Amino acid sequence: HTSLCTDTRGEDRIVVWDEEFFQGRRQEFTTECYDVRTCGFQTLRSLKIESGAWAGFEHVGFQGQQFVLERGEYPRWEAWSGSHAYHMERMSSFRPIACANHRNSKMTIFEWENFLGRKGDLSDDYPSLPAMGWGSSAVMASPVFCSWVCSQFPGYRGFQYILECDCHAGEYKHFREWGSHAQTSQVQSIRRIQQ
Amino acid sequence: HTSLCTDTRGEDRIVVWDEEFFQGRRQEFTTECYDVRTCGFQTLRSLKIESGAWAGFEHVGFQGQQFVLERGEYPRWEAWSGSHAYHMERMSSFRPIACANHRNSKMTIFEWENFLGRKGDLSDDYPSLPAMGWGSSAVMASPVFCSWVCSQFPGYRGFQYILECDCHAGEYKHFREWGSHAQTSQVQSIRRIQQ
Repeated sequence: HTSLCTDTRGEDRIVVWDEEFFQGRRQEFTTECYDVRTCGFQTLRSLKIESGAWAGFEHVGFQGQQFVLERGEYPRWEAWSGSHAYHMERMSSFRPIACANHRNSKMTIFEWENFLGRKGDLSDDYPSLPAMGWGSSAVMASPVFCSWVCSQFPGYRGFQYILECDCHAGEYKHFREWGSHAQTSQVQSIRRIQQ
Repeated sequence: HTSLCTDTRGEDRIVVWDEEFFQGRRQEFTTECYDVRTCGFQTLRSLKIESGAWAGFEHVGFQGQQFVLERGEYPRWEAWSGSHAYHMERMSSFRPIACANHRNSKMTIFEWENFLGRKGDLSDDYPSLPAMGWGSSAVMASPVFCSWVCSQFPGYRGFQYILECDCHAGEYKHFREWGSHAQTSQVQSIRRIQQ
């Protein structure tokens, strides 16, 4: 696997607040934050992405539920969370998502673990994999050009799993590699991340 | 305005249940349902879209919050709701969304009411309009080829507004025409509906 992503990290900018609707303590970041508590935050309650694409995480150290954050305004936790079985009001760490020339994004998906079974090449956004003739589970992925987000339900809803070409050597052989919160292999929508 | 949508309603199929996870009373529909209570349901708690794209509504008569439903499984309300300021566990009516040749979808958006201000032609999915240089509000739309969904927050989260080329004469001049639940003109993502 050869990573051909363009690293745009120098241009990334996120602004966070400790109260909803962009109130209270405010801080700007241009690089990753491993633990918001080290910056005087208990948690984040609102944020704006001013440039780049970012990944937000439930727990410190980039663990727990993942949230893809593209440019725009997130006044409350509902704006970044998908819809989940439990309220996820916490965001404790975040980092920029490398690369992504959105127009040239490519990913190969496989039906079964270890890149076995049916194979598909993606280069567009797919709000419903079942509509493309895929089942609703067991999609293992090899992302190149560049970063993608898989979602549990159609229409990009539910748990989000961020797949990057420069993580895991660009290969996700088993759904447990999608992230520490991945409990099933159910994926019903996949799209490119915009930067 | 000339509607050039392909009507595929004959092939649409939705299966609904009155309990979560596809349990309890079950019924199939191939056409619209104005009021689920007339079919013996108090509300819907899970559903599967087997073909076509559908719009689900909070209230009877296709009123209230809108949910775009593409092919796949929706075991609980969190699967079809975006993430909202209040829990929306009710779905009381639904109908097929006409047409949509996904590959040829086109829509013109405008910055201000009555098709004034800056103009943009869309033919792809846009998880972040701010990343495209658009502001976060006041996008009025003229959808052709064929049906689109606008969302309040980036990444297709929050309130959903379904725009169809065969409704409103294919024109949405003011955000109040997006639906009875539209309280602001904030739109930060737009995509085609897949069928």
